[in-house]
Amino acid sequence: MDKYLITGFSGFVSKHFLELLEEKKEIVSVVGIDINYPGFAYTIYKHVTCNFHKIDLLDKSQVDNVIYNFQPNYILHLASYSSVAFSWKNPVASFTNNTNVFLNLIEQVRLLDLKCRILSIGSSEEYGNVREEDIPLSEEHALTPVSPYAVARVSQELISKVYVEGFGMDIVITRSFNHIGIGQKELFVVSSFAKKLVEIKSLNLHNAEIQTGDLKIIRDFLDVRDVVRAYYLLLKKGRKGEIYNVCSNNGIALEEVLNKMVAYLKLEVNIIRDPKLIRPSDNKIIVGNNSKLKSETGWDAQIGLERSLEDIIHYWQKKHENIV
Amino acid sequence: MDKYLITGFSGFVSKHFLELLEEKKEIVSVVGIDINYPGFAYTIYKHVTCNFHKIDLLDKSQVDNVIYNFQPNYILHLASYSSVAFSWKNPVASFTNNTNVFLNLIEQVRLLDLKCRILSIGSSEEYGNVREEDIPLSEEHALTPVSPYAVARVSQELISKVYVEGFGMDIVITRSFNHIGIGQKELFVVSSFAKKLVEIKSLNLHNAEIQTGDLKIIRDFLDVRDVVRAYYLLLKKGRKGEIYNVCSNNGIALEEVLNKMVAYLKLEVNIIRDPKLIRPSDNKIIVGNNSKLKSETGWDAQIGLERSLEDIIHYWQKKHENIV
Repeated sequence: MDKYLITGFSGFVSKHFLELLEEKKEIVSVVGIDINYPGFAYTIYKHVTCNFHKIDLLDKSQVDNVIYNFQPNYILHLASYSSVAFSWKNPVASFTNNTNVFLNLIEQVRLLDLKCRILSIGSSEEYGNVREEDIPLSEEHALTPVSPYAVARVSQELISKVYVEGFGMDIVITRSFNHIGIGQKELFVVSSFAKKLVEIKSLNLHNAEIQTGDLKIIRDFLDVRDVVRAYYLLLKKGRKGEIYNVCSNNGIALEEVLNKMVAYLKLEVNIIRDPKLIRPSDNKIIVGNNSKLKSETGWDAQIGLERSLEDIIHYWQKKHENIV
Repeated sequence: MDKYLITGFSGFVSKHFLELLEEKKEIVSVVGIDINYPGFAYTIYKHVTCNFHKIDLLDKSQVDNVIYNFQPNYILHLASYSSVAFSWKNPVASFTNNTNVFLNLIEQVRLLDLKCRILSIGSSEEYGNVREEDIPLSEEHALTPVSPYAVARVSQELISKVYVEGFGMDIVITRSFNHIGIGQKELFVVSSFAKKLVEIKSLNLHNAEIQTGDLKIIRDFLDVRDVVRAYYLLLKKGRKGEIYNVCSNNGIALEEVLNKMVAYLKLEVNIIRDPKLIRPSDNKIIVGNNSKLKSETGWDAQIGLERSLEDIIHYWQKKHENIV
């Protein structure tokens, strides 16, 4: 029986990963760890047996115990301090926490000599500011990380490579681009837009205002359900030590994402650019090339942007109705 | 009056840096910090006033205090856990200690908003395994670090870039190749050879054996006196956020270094290759291009390899005579 350890279990990605595992109808065991309790039910599945441990991944002895007791053969390392904005305010905490949680994990797998594949989740932020002619970015593109968060992610990748080459460990590495979907917190831009627009809609406001950062930036958004299918396939079919972009291959300006949601809800809103929401050194355009992921694992995106956005809006509408 | 903070003060580089400062005949103030007491006299200078604080650079509050009290306008960050071999045995300690000591330092300079130039010392190990046709390596060459130590050094460089671009800090970055010279510990290969050969010579041994690692590897050795002149010039004339190779531009196999010392001492020795001294993933050849350092600072190497080796041998002979 396959045993999956999932870090960052209480984030929004792991619930979708559990649903994918359940769909596969294999009998699997999952242990989730996170510093926060999950906000979703994880014991409802028929094929997936899931346990949760509330631990701080910076606490090495607790991490060591979980790995020793569970002896996973797959680790999906979703945990991170993933906010770029936080990393500008707390550069040292962002860097050290991100790298330390990863090191605590892989070091225990190494010392126990576990036969265990680890999926190390990196970020498109690693590429930094790139030229338009280099879009879509392939995995060979040079990395010039421009935030403390991005530097931590590059470091994690370099550490992974050394553990694969120097210690023979089985680590597959992603550079995951922006993902969106049901359950994502409003800290993230698309959820934040959806939540605000749903509120405006429900209050029937005319000439409502919405505060935004820089809407000209172009990102590559992938539905979280496509993301977790990529993670599953990489755990099963990825090559160790290799890096894979997880992305849609399509760029879209935040402005267009916002406009699509405004149109879907049949709203009129005034968009106000708030300088406080502009980040220093923010990347203008990030779009990835996903051909390596496709050709090596058979993955393909199944959920288009329109459907993602509609599902996200419906999710926030349901949440709003429960509140009101 | 210029004020220099030197970390890793008790290592062998800082003594040579103090001697260079003294030669300049400027009145300067130096504070040295290190976890160990220095093994050399640092209060003997006429122009350089030097104080030492024994502190652990991982202890953020102590580092903060020294910087706050001294308010340096230059920081020469020599401190590191610089052994590649140690990093293979203790990958987590090597990575986290190296990155944490650097972060503690620059974060305090940032928070105090000091007008202070920092020289971040990196390593030729950052380049990793390179092809012979890429030798000598220029600063633009891709980095593929192959040891935990090298990954920490790349991370330090990436952090430096982010602090320069994102926070406007004044950091100049080196990639320092192997340096050799008087006072270097026998943990390092050339000192280790010199010490053993001096012992063999003094005992008048015939057919003595010397245990070595892989003698075919090619390195770029620079005398420490040339290294500290480069550091001084980079502090004065380097461009912030820029990376500079500090190297001789010449490659030499360890075998040839050993043979030169054997010949100088008129010895005959049997060279025994000890598999225990071979490191995993060791780089076969590392030679740097120093044209950026030369053209931007006016630096040039003044001490040839033969003179370096002779001075090192004389140093070990003096040490040996004091012991015997």
